[in-house]
Amino acid sequence: MKFTLGQIANILGGKVEGDENLTVNTLVKIQEGKPGGIGFLANEKYESHIYTTKATAIIVSEGFKPKSQVPCALIRVKDAYNGFTNLLEAYDHLNKTSKTGIEEPSFCDPSSTVGEGCYRAAFSYIGKNCSIGNNVKIHAHVTIGDNTVIGDNTILYYGAKIKNGSVLGKNCEIHSGAVIGSDGFGFAPQEDGTYKSIPQIGNVILEDYVSVGANTTIDCATIGSTIIRKGAKIDNLVQIAHNVDVGENTVIASQTGISGSTVIGKNCIIAGQVGIVGHITIADNTTIAAKTGISKSIKKPGQTIFGYMGMDIKDFLKSYSLFKNLPQIQDKLKELEKKQ
Amino acid sequence: MKFTLGQIANILGGKVEGDENLTVNTLVKIQEGKPGGIGFLANEKYESHIYTTKATAIIVSEGFKPKSQVPCALIRVKDAYNGFTNLLEAYDHLNKTSKTGIEEPSFCDPSSTVGEGCYRAAFSYIGKNCSIGNNVKIHAHVTIGDNTVIGDNTILYYGAKIKNGSVLGKNCEIHSGAVIGSDGFGFAPQEDGTYKSIPQIGNVILEDYVSVGANTTIDCATIGSTIIRKGAKIDNLVQIAHNVDVGENTVIASQTGISGSTVIGKNCIIAGQVGIVGHITIADNTTIAAKTGISKSIKKPGQTIFGYMGMDIKDFLKSYSLFKNLPQIQDKLKELEKKQ
Amino acid sequence: MKFTLGQIANILGGKVEGDENLTVNTLVKIQEGKPGGIGFLANEKYESHIYTTKATAIIVSEGFKPKSQVPCALIRVKDAYNGFTNLLEAYDHLNKTSKTGIEEPSFCDPSSTVGEGCYRAAFSYIGKNCSIGNNVKIHAHVTIGDNTVIGDNTILYYGAKIKNGSVLGKNCEIHSGAVIGSDGFGFAPQEDGTYKSIPQIGNVILEDYVSVGANTTIDCATIGSTIIRKGAKIDNLVQIAHNVDVGENTVIASQTGISGSTVIGKNCIIAGQVGIVGHITIADNTTIAAKTGISKSIKKPGQTIFGYMGMDIKDFLKSYSLFKNLPQIQDKLKELEKKQ
Repeated sequence: MKFTLGQIANILGGKVEGDENLTVNTLVKIQEGKPGGIGFLANEKYESHIYTTKATAIIVSEGFKPKSQVPCALIRVKDAYNGFTNLLEAYDHLNKTSKTGIEEPSFCDPSSTVGEGCYRAAFSYIGKNCSIGNNVKIHAHVTIGDNTVIGDNTILYYGAKIKNGSVLGKNCEIHSGAVIGSDGFGFAPQEDGTYKSIPQIGNVILEDYVSVGANTTIDCATIGSTIIRKGAKIDNLVQIAHNVDVGENTVIASQTGISGSTVIGKNCIIAGQVGIVGHITIADNTTIAAKTGISKSIKKPGQTIFGYMGMDIKDFLKSYSLFKNLPQIQDKLKELEKKQ
Repeated sequence: MKFTLGQIANILGGKVEGDENLTVNTLVKIQEGKPGGIGFLANEKYESHIYTTKATAIIVSEGFKPKSQVPCALIRVKDAYNGFTNLLEAYDHLNKTSKTGIEEPSFCDPSSTVGEGCYRAAFSYIGKNCSIGNNVKIHAHVTIGDNTVIGDNTILYYGAKIKNGSVLGKNCEIHSGAVIGSDGFGFAPQEDGTYKSIPQIGNVILEDYVSVGANTTIDCATIGSTIIRKGAKIDNLVQIAHNVDVGENTVIASQTGISGSTVIGKNCIIAGQVGIVGHITIADNTTIAAKTGISKSIKKPGQTIFGYMGMDIKDFLKSYSLFKNLPQIQDKLKELEKKQ
Repeated sequence: MKFTLGQIANILGGKVEGDENLTVNTLVKIQEGKPGGIGFLANEKYESHIYTTKATAIIVSEGFKPKSQVPCALIRVKDAYNGFTNLLEAYDHLNKTSKTGIEEPSFCDPSSTVGEGCYRAAFSYIGKNCSIGNNVKIHAHVTIGDNTVIGDNTILYYGAKIKNGSVLGKNCEIHSGAVIGSDGFGFAPQEDGTYKSIPQIGNVILEDYVSVGANTTIDCATIGSTIIRKGAKIDNLVQIAHNVDVGENTVIASQTGISGSTVIGKNCIIAGQVGIVGHITIADNTTIAAKTGISKSIKKPGQTIFGYMGMDIKDFLKSYSLFKNLPQIQDKLKELEKKQ
């Protein structure tokens, strides 16, 4: 997408100093400017770059007075940082929502309904009896299984897979390769040492404004629903097992795994590579540091937890610093023993 | 799928108390009943729910006598729990096997053969010289590479990827996004600091009744075969490297990684986020706790292993409890030193 | 692919002893020979197998004199090991590059250009304004987003997903299900406890000879580029966050995660399940052992790092061996205290 500086100044309520008809097609950092790019200058620390930048245009604040000639056009706005942020959001929104219509070949069972303003890419697949809201963007190689409900404005990126019976809210983003509703890992051991699979017939519910990262897997419930509540944000390669319940506005970073039937509270922050056992509860506002293992419920809200088996972070760090000193601790012990 | 209560009573060998023509389309927990759902009451603890449930029908045992009026139909069977379990399995089986035939557009090279009762979804891909058994279910966006063999009744879910030359047994389930047969990670360091890739020309063999989780990756062998033996169950996001051999009925939970050429015994249970180095062997019936790292062979069968570097679980827990007490241990040591 | 022994002897500059018209279609280990297979004998230790092998042919060195009759044809070359390695590489190269042309249905926006000698499988997708070099192999279910550039000889395996704006160099291999350019995980906390997503409008650059493993995810930059430099090799299920920079010839094993804006030096070796926090730098030639957590920059090149919080490997192993002895350490301490 290309825009003239005049169009951008209009969007931002600013004024062009230079050629209004120049076009830009990307946003850049001032120190990494290139032709066709537009950047911003909000912090004096970066001012030197404006005199050498290769960007086509730089957004500056009303009060900015160049100390020498600048090699690019300027767009002067009230506050350069806010101006750039607004532009960034407008650009991102446009990027994400500009595609509409149907590319062929695509597949949609005639029993399903699709709202207005949707995009259905080539090789997208919609099964039977689905209900797809308005402005839903279904990119290439997305699979939507039978009896699925998807709310307005939700975006499904390349190859996202939504198993039959899932319910996705409005304004969700499901990133590439994510799997929503795969079978929970449930097997009953038999007397002969083999395992019999336990039917997994529940579904997954994602409430509104949920984000699911690339290649993340969220299993369906055995019976009932695995639930990701409103505004929860889940990063790439995360595993959410059957019947888990993730609270509102909880954030889960990459490669973390949550075992079956565990309930995570609201507004928790769970860092990367954390492991949480099944059938426990984590209180609201809990922060869990990277690589921590959690084997028991956390009942008091607002704690920060860390370490191989999930200790309070201060206690863990104290013990860990002594772990590093274990060789000295042993030496002292030996000395003391000798003196006896 | 909808069923009348009369049909269900028939399947279970039970009797309807209420309207035989009511229909249900899902199975529910009695405490989460909803119209169209059928649940069960087997445990007295849950009896109160039967008087308020919104489910359309509840399965009860022969001896159950309601203490007051129930708001739903009943299906009376010999044993309510067994009846519900049978229904669950029948429903699950039907769900998994009811699709047959070919949806278009699909791709199948004319040199390949496909058995009877199969399902080939839109956008499914079958390469050259493949041999696909009977009742194989190939869902949307599945890729099956050239020269692949797939046994009867195996199910490949959305976007499963089977690289050329793989051999899959009967009654396997490959979940969405799983990759079978990707190149092993083998690179030979060169004198100039670069790496040259070592050809990975082997394949993957999955024996019968193997389950592979969503987005799990199983690499092909360098030469020969990576083997997952009969009845092994592998969860989501697991990594199995080249030339690994996983024993019969071994269960591997999510996000665990097994490095190249390692041999895992039979009937092992490996929990989540475990890491196992390459070129070692793990004895039969070994249990490995979550997040454990295994750097040496485990030769004695039947052990339970735990901890950062894989210790016996009792020893690890003893040391870990003292790790938590390291600050007190040091304090005592200091006191003793002062007294000297 | 089938070859006669005569053809193979020609390729290797060797001589057939036996029937030149016999055909082989796979490479085998001598101890696992089967009809249609060709193996090699370079090490005396394996000589006994040549008298019983079921392989169709065995490559032997000039000097080899059988002690009794061999049941297979021989191909005699100067050095059997080199001969076999050459054959392996030729076979692998042929396997990877033999497909050319377009299978239908495939999708390619008319605004994109595709070079010569390319393969575009059925259900492959190429968006708008892409520039695809020569001999690029695009397998089934690959998605290539708008404005993407892909260099000569690069191979995209089943279901690889390249988001719009990515730039891939020459001779790269992107394995099945890998996601290049998914949104970075950036959310700004709002006063009401919700999160607002931070636009992620940058891209991913892979330089030449980069390998990306199956189901690995590499996020685009917030602004600018996430960069994987020349010759870097990344295994399966790895997470590379936004704005990360991975140095030349660095090798990253499976299930490792690297957080946002971290810069990894050249020729590093990072083992499996490692976690590295954001906004730090790792010096050139650093080796990081499996499962290590790295929370601070590593400034001195050439170190080997290990342990929960990234200690020097010798220090870690010393402390860890004492961790195992903590129960004895405490016992001694108690004894000493009693004696006081």
